[in-house]
Amino acid sequence: MGSDQRQFILGAFLMNYGHHIAAWRHADSAGVGAMDYDFYKRCAQAAERGKFDMVFLADNNSIPLIEDLRTNVSFLQPEALTMLSGLAGVTERIGLAGTASTTFNEPYGLARRLSTLDHMSGGRAAWNVVTSTKDAEARNFGSAELMEHGKRYERAEEFLRVVTGLWDGWEDDALVLDREKAVFADTARIHRAHHEGEYFRVEGPLNMPRSPQGRPVIIEAGTSAAGRRLAARTADVVFTACESKEDAIKYYREFKDLLMEYGREREEVKVLPGLQIFLGDSEAEAMAYHRTFSELILPEAGVKYVSQLLNADLTGYPVDGPLPDLPREGNSSRAIMIMDMAAKSGMSILELGRHYAVARGHMTMVGTARQVADMMEDWFRSMACDGFNIMAPLLPSGLEQFVERVVPLLQQRGLFREEYAGRTLRDHLGLIRPQTQHEK
Amino acid sequence: MGSDQRQFILGAFLMNYGHHIAAWRHADSAGVGAMDYDFYKRCAQAAERGKFDMVFLADNNSIPLIEDLRTNVSFLQPEALTMLSGLAGVTERIGLAGTASTTFNEPYGLARRLSTLDHMSGGRAAWNVVTSTKDAEARNFGSAELMEHGKRYERAEEFLRVVTGLWDGWEDDALVLDREKAVFADTARIHRAHHEGEYFRVEGPLNMPRSPQGRPVIIEAGTSAAGRRLAARTADVVFTACESKEDAIKYYREFKDLLMEYGREREEVKVLPGLQIFLGDSEAEAMAYHRTFSELILPEAGVKYVSQLLNADLTGYPVDGPLPDLPREGNSSRAIMIMDMAAKSGMSILELGRHYAVARGHMTMVGTARQVADMMEDWFRSMACDGFNIMAPLLPSGLEQFVERVVPLLQQRGLFREEYAGRTLRDHLGLIRPQTQHEK
Repeated sequence: MGSDQRQFILGAFLMNYGHHIAAWRHADSAGVGAMDYDFYKRCAQAAERGKFDMVFLADNNSIPLIEDLRTNVSFLQPEALTMLSGLAGVTERIGLAGTASTTFNEPYGLARRLSTLDHMSGGRAAWNVVTSTKDAEARNFGSAELMEHGKRYERAEEFLRVVTGLWDGWEDDALVLDREKAVFADTARIHRAHHEGEYFRVEGPLNMPRSPQGRPVIIEAGTSAAGRRLAARTADVVFTACESKEDAIKYYREFKDLLMEYGREREEVKVLPGLQIFLGDSEAEAMAYHRTFSELILPEAGVKYVSQLLNADLTGYPVDGPLPDLPREGNSSRAIMIMDMAAKSGMSILELGRHYAVARGHMTMVGTARQVADMMEDWFRSMACDGFNIMAPLLPSGLEQFVERVVPLLQQRGLFREEYAGRTLRDHLGLIRPQTQHEK
Repeated sequence: MGSDQRQFILGAFLMNYGHHIAAWRHADSAGVGAMDYDFYKRCAQAAERGKFDMVFLADNNSIPLIEDLRTNVSFLQPEALTMLSGLAGVTERIGLAGTASTTFNEPYGLARRLSTLDHMSGGRAAWNVVTSTKDAEARNFGSAELMEHGKRYERAEEFLRVVTGLWDGWEDDALVLDREKAVFADTARIHRAHHEGEYFRVEGPLNMPRSPQGRPVIIEAGTSAAGRRLAARTADVVFTACESKEDAIKYYREFKDLLMEYGREREEVKVLPGLQIFLGDSEAEAMAYHRTFSELILPEAGVKYVSQLLNADLTGYPVDGPLPDLPREGNSSRAIMIMDMAAKSGMSILELGRHYAVARGHMTMVGTARQVADMMEDWFRSMACDGFNIMAPLLPSGLEQFVERVVPLLQQRGLFREEYAGRTLRDHLGLIRPQTQHEK
């Protein structure tokens, strides 16, 4: 069991009160949650004690229905990169992965923010690249409705090209800092981007030297067909949602095959499904813990939550009836996954609400630390994943329990690091530090 | 000399290697500088030991001329709000003031970032509102050239209206968090912004509750006529540049009069000139210290620096000759100030370069701690300012010296706090916490 065997990659997916929809109502909930710095700091420090590769923050930019805030907290979110920047100084090794949309940002501004975070953290920044999927977000950024799905992906792809060009603008040795000769930079090694495309015109260069990782790590969802192709070309890590090992194995094989088609190695992109975990000292205790959450789900909150995931208003339909026909075209891949699951399972709207309220379509595991470690090992050895993005129903406690109980088992089995070997997130993930376009 | 006498407001203006153009070449320079987290952390913690009201970060979004990077570091800058967010967790009381442009941001995104920082820091966020003044910045954000001065100010004013509306969207008691009754928020107390203006359409609300300060503190430059009017209507703090006490007194009186015209109290907006300080144990030592910097100014770097401040290329003109006629219309107020100064003083281009390389048009003081404290007290008692934004030629050392030597003198004279009395930046500044528009 040496360290040269393939090892897990672990992300800690943070979420206001926790990943269960009723987390904020749970008796053990920390209380303030959604915007509290100490909450995020405690989570990140727990994950770092557990030698996680990274913490991961989602983000979104709207409240589609104000009335939903009566019971549903899932849209509340600190701006992800701002909160992560606040964690850079109180952590040392763990990666800091944040979500930001290509639909409503400008590449020059976002490239600077991510490069600054990479500098500040000594090479620990990652960007989860998303396109926005809600008309409510468009209405906060000057448009009545969202641009259509294909255009959003075109824009995302061009956005990534621009940002990469900006990150490559300063070669590594461009900063000379020779005080005697009065040479600050070797200007022959600093390059404008000169980008003129369909969506962006950006001259460059950034007003900062190249960051420790060269380019921050790129994370994408890679679920829709367009998203999968984009990820196969441009991602370092893919964050997926699978509710069964079979689905995960299929996705993993197909995605890694797709990588080869684009001339990349199978190891160049890491595939991480989300995994929601309810832990107990015994299986019965874990089940009881899971039940304490289920009992807190308000039926209407579950239904509203599914409405939001589907980008649809289900309030007019009988909750005991089936899901009505909803538009697939232009909807998110998560929404389409839920429609397919509803058709296949025959679940009522209410049942769908209860189901997705637990983990939003991610794999859910209820059991002891050993059972969880066994399941994780089984997926890992079955080539269903390269690791997991760990979700806890309640935070920070669920993550702290995972670190205390499950991580040591994975370490004993030689499946997970006992200490960080490198300094940067690219080091942890086993990814190379890319050269700039200009040095190749 | 009680604490109820009027007291200084002090900002610590941070800048990559220091505020002197040749700081990076100085023998005592810390070295890495421009993007180094520990550098900014050390500065912020020094300022907090000195009980400063806030640290202040500039920002910009371009490198107009790559060749200038051979000697000129003034355009290098971490993204200000990202770096400040990184300081929130390693400081406790000091305000965190960062610059962000209304010309190339979207109000919803920036309102979220500032509100997140205010939440994270327990109410210490401030936003230095600027309009961009360089075509080079426009070329990084999709346009060949900048929109004209008047339109930039219109956009800035509308931007501020939108952001304020978003910050006011959640009333203070909107967050209920009643676990038993399953009420997360009182949705009657959450309001959309419904903004439809010339430059922006923003529906709102933000997806986060109201932040500790209600609204982060607003800082503006208020130098140009348009900027001054905007500041008189919307700012909490005005950051100015004056090279003499007489100019400062005139500005202070006129600005406070203007406040009255807009129906605001004279105390509602604090006026802080920049102040660059070269300290020594004796006057001779301070002069010698100043000289170590002057000797490091490369003539061409000074000229290039003035070119940048003027948004003009002076390389074709004889350096011993006068400043040529340059466009005033649409130029920055700093540029116009320099043109006026050149005309009045008859300085050559080279002399202007040497002069502005020191402090970019801010007041410069060379002397002992006592002389500095005397000068500061004199300005303060003469109603030339409400305090200063302290600049050090070299950082962090210049700021640390100020904290160790000058601050105690101001405290002994009852002119500055010995301990923070409140928790938020508004507390430090003596500003009220505004109610939302909906509660009025």
